[in-house]
Amino acid sequence: VFLELDGEGPNYAQLIRAIKAAIVSGRMSSGVRLPSTRALARELGLSRITVLAAYEQLRAEGYVESRVGSGSYVNSLRTEPALKPPANEPIAPPSRYAGRARAVQDRLLPRIHLGVRFDLQYGEPQINPALNAIWGRELARAATYTPMRVSLSQGHLPLREQICRYLALRRGVQVAAEQVLIVSGSQQAIALTARVLIDEGDAAVIEDPHYFGAWQELTAHGACLVPVATDHEGLICAQLPKSAPRLIYVTPSHQFPAGSTLSLSRRLELLRYAEANQCWVVEDDYDSEFRYDAHPLAALRSLDHGDRVIYIGTFSKVLSGALRLGYMVLPTSLRDDFVNAKFLCGFGCPTLEQAALAHFMENGGFERHLRRSTKVLRARREALIAGLHHHAGKRVQVADSHAGMHVVIWLPDYSYAQIDVLIAMAHEAGLGLYPMAPHYHFPPAIPGLMLGYCNLSTTDIEDAMCLFGECLDAIDASVLSPT
Amino acid sequence: VFLELDGEGPNYAQLIRAIKAAIVSGRMSSGVRLPSTRALARELGLSRITVLAAYEQLRAEGYVESRVGSGSYVNSLRTEPALKPPANEPIAPPSRYAGRARAVQDRLLPRIHLGVRFDLQYGEPQINPALNAIWGRELARAATYTPMRVSLSQGHLPLREQICRYLALRRGVQVAAEQVLIVSGSQQAIALTARVLIDEGDAAVIEDPHYFGAWQELTAHGACLVPVATDHEGLICAQLPKSAPRLIYVTPSHQFPAGSTLSLSRRLELLRYAEANQCWVVEDDYDSEFRYDAHPLAALRSLDHGDRVIYIGTFSKVLSGALRLGYMVLPTSLRDDFVNAKFLCGFGCPTLEQAALAHFMENGGFERHLRRSTKVLRARREALIAGLHHHAGKRVQVADSHAGMHVVIWLPDYSYAQIDVLIAMAHEAGLGLYPMAPHYHFPPAIPGLMLGYCNLSTTDIEDAMCLFGECLDAIDASVLSPT
Repeated sequence: VFLELDGEGPNYAQLIRAIKAAIVSGRMSSGVRLPSTRALARELGLSRITVLAAYEQLRAEGYVESRVGSGSYVNSLRTEPALKPPANEPIAPPSRYAGRARAVQDRLLPRIHLGVRFDLQYGEPQINPALNAIWGRELARAATYTPMRVSLSQGHLPLREQICRYLALRRGVQVAAEQVLIVSGSQQAIALTARVLIDEGDAAVIEDPHYFGAWQELTAHGACLVPVATDHEGLICAQLPKSAPRLIYVTPSHQFPAGSTLSLSRRLELLRYAEANQCWVVEDDYDSEFRYDAHPLAALRSLDHGDRVIYIGTFSKVLSGALRLGYMVLPTSLRDDFVNAKFLCGFGCPTLEQAALAHFMENGGFERHLRRSTKVLRARREALIAGLHHHAGKRVQVADSHAGMHVVIWLPDYSYAQIDVLIAMAHEAGLGLYPMAPHYHFPPAIPGLMLGYCNLSTTDIEDAMCLFGECLDAIDASVLSPT
Repeated sequence: VFLELDGEGPNYAQLIRAIKAAIVSGRMSSGVRLPSTRALARELGLSRITVLAAYEQLRAEGYVESRVGSGSYVNSLRTEPALKPPANEPIAPPSRYAGRARAVQDRLLPRIHLGVRFDLQYGEPQINPALNAIWGRELARAATYTPMRVSLSQGHLPLREQICRYLALRRGVQVAAEQVLIVSGSQQAIALTARVLIDEGDAAVIEDPHYFGAWQELTAHGACLVPVATDHEGLICAQLPKSAPRLIYVTPSHQFPAGSTLSLSRRLELLRYAEANQCWVVEDDYDSEFRYDAHPLAALRSLDHGDRVIYIGTFSKVLSGALRLGYMVLPTSLRDDFVNAKFLCGFGCPTLEQAALAHFMENGGFERHLRRSTKVLRARREALIAGLHHHAGKRVQVADSHAGMHVVIWLPDYSYAQIDVLIAMAHEAGLGLYPMAPHYHFPPAIPGLMLGYCNLSTTDIEDAMCLFGECLDAIDASVLSPT
């Protein structure tokens, strides 16, 4: 029998694998006598001790049996029929969930610009090397003071308490720690919401445009999504469907990605609709931390006297998505169902990270970080808008927005085809631009761009806007000779 | 209008809340003029600046409008019909998932002994204060060297590579990093498996006894569970159902919780069944790290030439459940579906924890920790078994097992009723004992106990076994006067 060692790891382990493969494939069949340890050692250039160790292991695992004075024999294992190697042809999705997840997965991903000088991508928060140092200290501290035990599925109590304090001060939401659930970011919050509230085929309203991750997860889960248009006042409540959906997913503070704020009268209209139709409202407050006007609106949840609003907050934008920490404020009647779902989906979030964040909030470091980040982002935002006015002038309309980490612009004098050329041209020049259209189910008549300014210095932003103006000029010049 | 401040947070925020509540409830109706800032300040004993700030905020949010020279008026908000407070009566489960999750949730939880001197609970790994210090250093190091960005949903590549190396050396599993998915522990692995493989109503085989968390999640997900009995060789493959299930969930290295090892011939029989019936095998290798015999069996996955075995490993037992880190080895045909599901359920695991663990494995710290823990656990296990022999003698049968963090004993001469008395009596004496029966769908004829020895010193274990013997003696004595 030819035994080929694969060169991975210790010799005896290689020999064991080789002999097992020969037995399982049927090349060494039941009852065959193995070579003597001495002979095999000589043949393979191994020490006899190595071969002895391998035989002993094979015996312990039941592959061979030893007969006293006569050597080792392959055991009867009934290995036929031979197990086939895996097929390479595409395989049908194993569950309906998997099938739906395959179908929705790439509306946005192919459009990422890699390696450009000025990438105006939205998503990752401000990269702040100082945060690494601060966070390292907080984690080390948490490791010193926190027993390494699984935390409650609902989340580490001190962190929930800090979140309550924060919500009361900053978002006008009065809530007790029992109604807060710690999750691993907004995406998990949406996934848990789907599990708790949606059966396959249930209708769910989503804003158009919307956060694509919510669209993906709700679709994969089996919801029938009903996109409802938004305008400068947010969701157009008059267009909510006649027949009640199970839930309405909204971004009231800062419509994602268009940037509008849901007006107070629409807020009340939405809550009345939810009450009348017995449906739930999911308020995703993904980046309300960064506001540049004096007077942010309080969260929708703070108006909700019917206990129908599920509030989602996250630390991914204000600190880092690397943490995987966010939270939900739950209606009383749903709290236990959400805690059950969180438990079943993988128990609580990591204990030390939760303890570190609780301490960071308690000692004021979080507020300090927030103030500093807001100051930096405000300067970048102003540089971006000034650059747009200077270099693009009246060719772009800047959508009015006083929050977040990106600016939306509309280009009413250009066609979608021209914007595609613009994006390609900008990419060649080292500027990554992102279109609005992929965020829509029904893309608008006028093309738009989403300009993330989080990770470029004000100088870079000025240069980027200069480049943007030059690309626009080139498009304008080419209008005389259309392609 | 009577305005009551709630005393929470700054005065202006309290005042804003109070006025909003009055407006939304209809007590201050549309068109009503607000008191002058001076008058209200005097009435409530606040500074006029506080009242001005509150009015300005209410104006910004659209609750009131100011008319020049005339004061502030409540805006028309159409707040009727009044929003009702939440109902307190029990509410129907919002989804079928939530309903099933409610129904399965408490087979085990009520039985935990709190505050006893000697708690033989199974679950939490050995509490090791040295690990806190080591882990704190690793986290601080990771914070220094790792950019705080969201990791790939599939997991941090260096960690996946370390896991491959570990699996090859320790578990006989040869696998590339592309087939490994990092998850937040076994429970998430099971939840993802349910999403990817199970539609509502699909059959899934589970061992009896079994890990209740798997039973719960599969049931909540909508699987029809088929319990198949186990014996001293593990799952009794001859009892697998005639009609093919979608998956078979097994614990081959160390049957949970009965402790047997799935024999080689059963392993091959199981794989042949899976191949013939086109179903998937889930191998939960939850505590294979701790083996006290020289020759652990290689993982079932290492025999799987049909690429039908989904392998689950976890760091919860060998390090700590507080980390929320585990991993899966995926069949080629399912890899993308699992990565999709992990993405949709909340993206990847926390970046710094993954980087810290990768470094801990790479620098040999993990292996050292494993060797030390195994040595400590072996001593505790031996003390437990010696204590049982000495104090319980022939009244208990110790189930043969060379792995894990607990020992199972059977008490063939006692009734279930007697064991309930024994457990209650032991609890009173400061000894927490856990019955086997809740881990079964069909409890066995003979009562058994599960004795976790992880977090008691050898001295404590000796004392605990002495106490155990005394309780047994008391039960024996009471046989003469049965209750």
